[in-house]
Amino acid sequence: MQKLGVIDLGSNTTRLIVMAYEPGHCFRLTDEVSETVRLAEGIGPSRMLQPAPIRRAVEALRMFYSLCISTGVNEVIAVGTSAIREAANQADFWAALRTATPLDLRIISAEDEAYFGYLGAINALPIQHGALFDTGGGSTQVMAVADRKRTRSFSVQAGVVRFTEQFVQSDPISRTDLRRLRAAARDAFAPLDWLPDLSNGRLGGIGGTVRQLARIDQKQRAYPLERVHGYQLTREAVERITEELARRSRRERLQIPGMKEERADVTLAGAVIIAALMDRGNFPYLLVSGQGVREGIFYQHFLADQPQPLLNEPRQFSVLNLARLTHYEPEHCARVAHLSLSLFDQLAPLHGYGAWERELLGYAAILHDIGISVGYYDHHKHGEYLIHNATLLGFSHREIVIIASLVRNHRKGWGDLTAYSPILATDDETRIARLSAMLRLAEYLERSKSQIVRDVRVQIGDEIVIDVIADGDAHVEIWEASRRSGLLKRSFGREVQIRAT
Amino acid sequence: MQKLGVIDLGSNTTRLIVMAYEPGHCFRLTDEVSETVRLAEGIGPSRMLQPAPIRRAVEALRMFYSLCISTGVNEVIAVGTSAIREAANQADFWAALRTATPLDLRIISAEDEAYFGYLGAINALPIQHGALFDTGGGSTQVMAVADRKRTRSFSVQAGVVRFTEQFVQSDPISRTDLRRLRAAARDAFAPLDWLPDLSNGRLGGIGGTVRQLARIDQKQRAYPLERVHGYQLTREAVERITEELARRSRRERLQIPGMKEERADVTLAGAVIIAALMDRGNFPYLLVSGQGVREGIFYQHFLADQPQPLLNEPRQFSVLNLARLTHYEPEHCARVAHLSLSLFDQLAPLHGYGAWERELLGYAAILHDIGISVGYYDHHKHGEYLIHNATLLGFSHREIVIIASLVRNHRKGWGDLTAYSPILATDDETRIARLSAMLRLAEYLERSKSQIVRDVRVQIGDEIVIDVIADGDAHVEIWEASRRSGLLKRSFGREVQIRAT
Repeated sequence: MQKLGVIDLGSNTTRLIVMAYEPGHCFRLTDEVSETVRLAEGIGPSRMLQPAPIRRAVEALRMFYSLCISTGVNEVIAVGTSAIREAANQADFWAALRTATPLDLRIISAEDEAYFGYLGAINALPIQHGALFDTGGGSTQVMAVADRKRTRSFSVQAGVVRFTEQFVQSDPISRTDLRRLRAAARDAFAPLDWLPDLSNGRLGGIGGTVRQLARIDQKQRAYPLERVHGYQLTREAVERITEELARRSRRERLQIPGMKEERADVTLAGAVIIAALMDRGNFPYLLVSGQGVREGIFYQHFLADQPQPLLNEPRQFSVLNLARLTHYEPEHCARVAHLSLSLFDQLAPLHGYGAWERELLGYAAILHDIGISVGYYDHHKHGEYLIHNATLLGFSHREIVIIASLVRNHRKGWGDLTAYSPILATDDETRIARLSAMLRLAEYLERSKSQIVRDVRVQIGDEIVIDVIADGDAHVEIWEASRRSGLLKRSFGREVQIRAT
Repeated sequence: MQKLGVIDLGSNTTRLIVMAYEPGHCFRLTDEVSETVRLAEGIGPSRMLQPAPIRRAVEALRMFYSLCISTGVNEVIAVGTSAIREAANQADFWAALRTATPLDLRIISAEDEAYFGYLGAINALPIQHGALFDTGGGSTQVMAVADRKRTRSFSVQAGVVRFTEQFVQSDPISRTDLRRLRAAARDAFAPLDWLPDLSNGRLGGIGGTVRQLARIDQKQRAYPLERVHGYQLTREAVERITEELARRSRRERLQIPGMKEERADVTLAGAVIIAALMDRGNFPYLLVSGQGVREGIFYQHFLADQPQPLLNEPRQFSVLNLARLTHYEPEHCARVAHLSLSLFDQLAPLHGYGAWERELLGYAAILHDIGISVGYYDHHKHGEYLIHNATLLGFSHREIVIIASLVRNHRKGWGDLTAYSPILATDDETRIARLSAMLRLAEYLERSKSQIVRDVRVQIGDEIVIDVIADGDAHVEIWEASRRSGLLKRSFGREVQIRAT
């Protein structure tokens, strides 16, 4: 595995990610550090970086560089965005940096920043058409997306540190200042006359502020998943949180569940900026992206031999990525997938499900055994845990709960779904039961992992008769599958018979 | 990694484990199958294996062998125990086996069976002195242990299938039959006049019946861990479960939470046998072993180049095994361990802890980052999960909860301990807080993973002053450690100052 370190020095935060990867094949995040250096602090209209923020930034960068070197990173890419881009005294920063570390920092244009943010998010979110935005400390980038391609970019100096310093003059904010803040945010996006046309697509949001708002909203809703990436944050939720932040003093804001200390000052301005952007485009909700500029830079390396650094099928890729990282058995999983899907297709008259369910069942088949990497006993439960904590790209939370549940149920028992009711549709329990039953049957028909069972032929009558087509003696597989056919029977309401041919 | 398959054909169950391993270095269970073939069914006083049980056994063995071959096992070892050892018609069995599979099955003596069971359990349980027993379908082996060496062995035909067939003639069992069963079990162990002398040591129990009893007891107590290995099963609990099993019909026994269907018939006889053995030696409780004959055979291979197939330090070995399987960073972990233990030693006047806590802190330091193998975000929580689900050898459940909690707390936050109160001592919350605080400080003094901080010098006064001895500029580490010193301050009730030297 190669290792790439990517550092992003923003106006509010500087962050490092370390990715271990085999180009085009698989990757995993192995380190992440985030420091709130607030480089833009006190920068004012003269655009002078102040000595204390410069020192904090340089110390963090030195530490990030040491971390990269000592963890065996092959290459480090460090980029600086708006605070440093616009600084009148860049030379002071360079002088401080060069005495501290050999790290090579590159200042990127607003255009490049937008591009990398787009790359990070478009590879990770289920967005074909619509818009993406990235709200940072110094600026916000907005990108139009059609067929996953970026068709327009717009950058405006509406950043959370900048707006906080400009408009928040008391604690809590005064109603007058709040009005001025809102007006400035509205004005910032006034030029975006193309944005409302995209509102039948989806909006994706990048950056620490979006994630902070999502975390607060999840706590307030007692949301059952820890996952922030892919979360649907509604316009109403942004409004509700804005009002709450505006009413409270800093100390009171720290009491809000999910609020990070280093974001207690700047999240109000961020919420106002994001609300204004959603209003400009009439978007009822946004999808939170856990990936942005740094991941975009990573994808450019990871997919260097492709014409464009876009994953062809992010969903399928990320499922295979997880399977590869957890050392799955490809032949066994391929056969379980084949048998599951054969059952799915032949049982279609009874379930009526379509391409969507079929796709999810196939993914669950690929992932069904990954829990063995944690421990053999209860590996179906470990698999569910791994899926809930993995980087999965392009899925909704509902889809992830369904896949994880199929894996949970692939051997025995039944994973309780009560906690997931805010995420699932009313008929998902039946859906999960039926798909799990097919996966379980396929797993036991592949019990000896020797691909002895080639296919099944299903006849649907008063009972479901499954004829097993095998390349040899599949007695044990048929016996095991018969013992495990209870869920199939219950979920379809018919007797099941499994026979040798 | 090499792969070894071990098959154990008993009187009740036949089981396969597949172990992937590097000799002497690390291992992991990658497959396990257990089939209740009940080979001894209907065997009677003439010791004739019946056709149906032979067919079931042969089919299971054929399937196990296919599974071994198709999952790339390098070597398969299959052993048969009492049912086949004593059969009058072994030839019928061999004939059936040889037409079905090339698997080479070896019949082992009661003496060898006891030895392998001893090896499996002694490498896995915290027992220096005392006794081990293995209750199977056809017989029970009892071994005396001194300094982890086996000093005596005893085998008796008190097995769960055998005794069930002999004494259980109605459903539920009659009081007369129960008395006869109890008397037979008592008689079986009467010759063990050396057993009471061992009762100041510990008793370890091997086999499916012990695990079944433990699972029922855990359910009845709402025990907070899923782990069965290492569980303390008391004589009172065995009695309580015996009474319950004796009162109920088969159908009613299946309603007992934790009861496995295939054990519903034979567990009563097993409980009576185990109770009689505990009474014979005056043991107030037994420690459940999740490992037995099969693992013993594995250890003989795994430790082939040692004079005896005993792990020198099962606890340390299994911690390193887990660390190796999850690709830990040895230099970083070694430095975090060194700094943690240096803090521990120098803070001794304040905490007064000894070698036991020091050992656990060292293990937590080795394991603190293993959760990264699941995912970087929340890796402290993933680490806790991995520890709770790993094969750890020679630890009590309390020790595992402590180590898992230290890993949980090593970065931030606090893992709630309420659920673990049946396992923890009253002062363990303070113990965990203080040890976690030291681990956390060490981790942040090693933030850049570059071993820049060599050691610490601690002065204890009204406040705790920690001087950091570094090979270079450790500004960021000191700053991070200072920010994360709140838990140290709270758990020791003193201000904390961390300084460069």
